[in-house]
Amino acid sequence: MTAPWITYRPQLKVLDCTIRDGGLMNDHQFEDGFVKAVYSACVESGIDYMEIGYKNSKKLFPPGKFGAWRHSDEDDVRRIVGDNDTPLKLTVMCDAGKSDWQTDVLPKADSVLDMIRVAFYAHQVSEAVDMINDAAEKGYEVSANLMAVSTNTEVEIDQVLELVADSPAGVIVVVDSFGALYTEQVELLVKKYAHFGGPSGKEVGIHAHNNQQLGFANTIESIIHGANRADASMAGLGRGGGNCPMELLIGFLRNPKFKIRPIYQVLETHLEPLRRNLDWGPHVQYNITGQLNQHPRSAIEARSGDGRGNYVDFYDKQISDV
Amino acid sequence: MTAPWITYRPQLKVLDCTIRDGGLMNDHQFEDGFVKAVYSACVESGIDYMEIGYKNSKKLFPPGKFGAWRHSDEDDVRRIVGDNDTPLKLTVMCDAGKSDWQTDVLPKADSVLDMIRVAFYAHQVSEAVDMINDAAEKGYEVSANLMAVSTNTEVEIDQVLELVADSPAGVIVVVDSFGALYTEQVELLVKKYAHFGGPSGKEVGIHAHNNQQLGFANTIESIIHGANRADASMAGLGRGGGNCPMELLIGFLRNPKFKIRPIYQVLETHLEPLRRNLDWGPHVQYNITGQLNQHPRSAIEARSGDGRGNYVDFYDKQISDV
Repeated sequence: MTAPWITYRPQLKVLDCTIRDGGLMNDHQFEDGFVKAVYSACVESGIDYMEIGYKNSKKLFPPGKFGAWRHSDEDDVRRIVGDNDTPLKLTVMCDAGKSDWQTDVLPKADSVLDMIRVAFYAHQVSEAVDMINDAAEKGYEVSANLMAVSTNTEVEIDQVLELVADSPAGVIVVVDSFGALYTEQVELLVKKYAHFGGPSGKEVGIHAHNNQQLGFANTIESIIHGANRADASMAGLGRGGGNCPMELLIGFLRNPKFKIRPIYQVLETHLEPLRRNLDWGPHVQYNITGQLNQHPRSAIEARSGDGRGNYVDFYDKQISDV
Repeated sequence: MTAPWITYRPQLKVLDCTIRDGGLMNDHQFEDGFVKAVYSACVESGIDYMEIGYKNSKKLFPPGKFGAWRHSDEDDVRRIVGDNDTPLKLTVMCDAGKSDWQTDVLPKADSVLDMIRVAFYAHQVSEAVDMINDAAEKGYEVSANLMAVSTNTEVEIDQVLELVADSPAGVIVVVDSFGALYTEQVELLVKKYAHFGGPSGKEVGIHAHNNQQLGFANTIESIIHGANRADASMAGLGRGGGNCPMELLIGFLRNPKFKIRPIYQVLETHLEPLRRNLDWGPHVQYNITGQLNQHPRSAIEARSGDGRGNYVDFYDKQISDV
């Protein structure tokens, strides 16, 4: 018996989703300085991918009401990263049903982006496969992200994976949108995704939410069971309970290419100050929606007003709705 | 394949250590109303044990400077619980090297306490065995808690367990004082403790700290691998990064005897207000000491002043000391 926890797998890659997922808490209204600080921290700390925003429809998400990172236009991205002459790869997320992907995803030759992440619910898998094909044909790496998998049956998940396995996606991600999954469930899902995706050479990823303070733990668990792509965000910034905190993930990984100090730096200068205006993290209301396998929207609403300390009222309301 | 996470083990018992461990953040200066509220929440939610404080030496911890729950005199305990005519069992912690256990632990017939938890570092195991024998002879259930196990070598741990296995302790607890252990390490330790303690019928317990947001996850992991005693505290109140939050643990356990609503109630009325004066939880400084397998005292000090946002300074200082 030796100690695998002080070794590393070179093929393990980390993705930062601070701006993309965190933007769900402020309609993606980040100042350029904030986005640049996160970008620089990613570069300096050796992170592999940065997801800089969504590429969603301007009809559904009008500019003005929504910030630049809901659409991630090429000009906006380049305003932050220039030609991105760094080892950091850039990605955006396209949602099935919410994106004009045919036109808004440019040919790779015209874009500084490296990867398209296709997000979809199980019932949208047909459009998702079209989106994956489109992005791959345009020249991008592609990731297939089945959202809210905690709400799907085994046979639904199998069906999705069967279709995605035949697609050109290079990665399929276990996405726990509601922060509802326990360790044992994560293990089963990672093994299932690898079972379907392995034969065609797909890597398995993990996108954990922290509603029950399991974001980091479930990410570790996925890595132990073979996931080679891990999502995290600075200070865990993300919708509701937030994501796996990058500062914990990088502290855990033993590949010497990763540096943690630039992450503490951006936490100190940009993330901690953001808490004055934005409320995220594993607060009690998020514990409750996570335990009940519910979308966090009711918890976000409860925490937006003066009643954020009224835990019992919130709990009573949630269980009366179940 | 079925779903073990929606079943339960009847023999799994939960211990609340809110007052005992939380008191390390305020010299155990809790108002009676607070202790009574925690006690009532434990009773109402079906928790099995409540650790109401330490039984430590009055010479080393002078009354006045330290509150009643550093000594847990019989009169003080009874002021809160009366004769404790409830199914909740009561326990206190005695530290090797810091307790006048020969005199301060009364015969069980004279006490409302049910269990003595003997806490010790590896080099104190000889006194610990004396303490275990003394408490058992006086009529108590006894738990053996080897502290800061993340700092011991395998052969030291084996030596301790060999001695404790021959003692009358009914429980041996994996204690991650520094919040340093990752999942794989917890699995190994739980199995090791069971290997030594199982033949003499001892149960394995887990006392996790939350410095790296792994308090709840490591508690789940221990339970999966056979631990039948789990420590937690209301809102995770405990030294530094805090403990496994009771509201998450009870949300996870499926034994219908456990009720979660009284826990949300006491969080709302007593724990959340306490945050105005006490700072605990998995803040960045605790992430750092946990990752470095260090005692949290430097982090507690760093967070007590105006510099609690200076993460990089703290990190630089810690790694220059390693």
